Amino acid sequence: MPRPPRVVLVEPQEPMNVGAVARAMRNFGLEELYLVNPSPRVGPPWAREAYWLAVHAAEVLDRAVAVASLEKALAGVQLVVATTGRPRELYPAPLVPVWEVPGHVRSVKGQAALVFGRETFGLTNQELDLAHLIAHIPTAPEQPSLNLAQAVVVFAYELYRAGLPNAAPGGGEELAEMGALEGFFADLERYVAEIGFADPHRLPYAMRRLRRIFHKARLSPGEVQLLRGLLHQSRYAMGRRDG
Amino acid sequence: MPRPPRVVLVEPQEPMNVGAVARAMRNFGLEELYLVNPSPRVGPPWAREAYWLAVHAAEVLDRAVAVASLEKALAGVQLVVATTGRPRELYPAPLVPVWEVPGHVRSVKGQAALVFGRETFGLTNQELDLAHLIAHIPTAPEQPSLNLAQAVVVFAYELYRAGLPNAAPGGGEELAEMGALEGFFADLERYVAEIGFADPHRLPYAMRRLRRIFHKARLSPGEVQLLRGLLHQSRYAMGRRDG
Repeated sequence: MPRPPRVVLVEPQEPMNVGAVARAMRNFGLEELYLVNPSPRVGPPWAREAYWLAVHAAEVLDRAVAVASLEKALAGVQLVVATTGRPRELYPAPLVPVWEVPGHVRSVKGQAALVFGRETFGLTNQELDLAHLIAHIPTAPEQPSLNLAQAVVVFAYELYRAGLPNAAPGGGEELAEMGALEGFFADLERYVAEIGFADPHRLPYAMRRLRRIFHKARLSPGEVQLLRGLLHQSRYAMGRRDG
Repeated sequence: MPRPPRVVLVEPQEPMNVGAVARAMRNFGLEELYLVNPSPRVGPPWAREAYWLAVHAAEVLDRAVAVASLEKALAGVQLVVATTGRPRELYPAPLVPVWEVPGHVRSVKGQAALVFGRETFGLTNQELDLAHLIAHIPTAPEQPSLNLAQAVVVFAYELYRAGLPNAAPGGGEELAEMGALEGFFADLERYVAEIGFADPHRLPYAMRRLRRIFHKARLSPGEVQLLRGLLHQSRYAMGRRDG
């Protein structure tokens, strides 16, 4: 399995942004953080506000590396993904949407790097020249640009999601088996007839609607048991009242 | 088209979080923000730090509504999606991953609401009882919980993405048509033979490798023209040197 992609921040200015980036990385299993010419306010040593925002991701900060050029931050990397928050109309490369990045990352054997630009103006064209592909997060035209840490959240989330098995967590819900469900419906039908909820000739229609309701609910075994218990108790109570 | 989902924050404590939420909402086209019993530090009137973080999303804050209960924040809503950052083992409902939420939202005619809990301990079980479904963002086990605004980013991103046409922005790349590409390959083959890059019996193999390179590059019409111009110029220069 290849190493998780490296995150490279070019000239970050705000300690809190760097901390929030570290936290988002740890949320989604990324570990290697490189900072190209960080502002002296950021560090190294990394600022207290960065650690404050990182919460339990202090380790990511502890191991973060400051380097003097983007080329140095990309040493040993096989696939370079530059990110941009605005259309680069004059730059001769198509933009790849963020959800296509995991496919590219998995298609190479070695490590990939995700490169994020400055808070103010992103990456220069010379920096984009180093990238195999340029990725962006489609956003509403009214406010196109995400802040640095929020952009890292979305990229890291997409990578993490792509690595998950393609199923609901826990392997999907456990549903009641047919026999138990039909046993419940039989109980319900008898009950509905007994209480006079529907005329005999209307009963099938009423049951069909009730079935739809409970099918939509995708009952678990325990829920079927609960409902049968409820019916049982209702009939018992009715018998006592009748008697 | 149904209205975009409403975002409901229950008892938010940090003005900066509320501002970051507003910004993320505007990034991804969400407009309605309800705050249930916000901390007095948050407002109303909304704190300066909230506006500072919101950047161009001041409008979202201007129109945000403070209410005294979650029920009031959900008035008129047809589908309630509660969000949780941690497993709710004792709560009898399955967790839906965030990427399944857009399908649920689109399956109802009316408006949906996304409910986010307190920064400290999320939503209570009584609050979860109001929800049709409970959604979460799968994260790395080492640091499971995202902060409030980062969680809103991921939910809003997934909803926005689901509303986009399922294609690359701009309708995909424009690739060179077959005829132009094969014209280039013919030029290239002639050139490779002329310069003695490969023995005649090795030429087909060399060409196959070269074809692979340029096919992977997915050349645009302009790029094919550029490469043909380059070959043309190379042959011209060679002729001059030979002569």
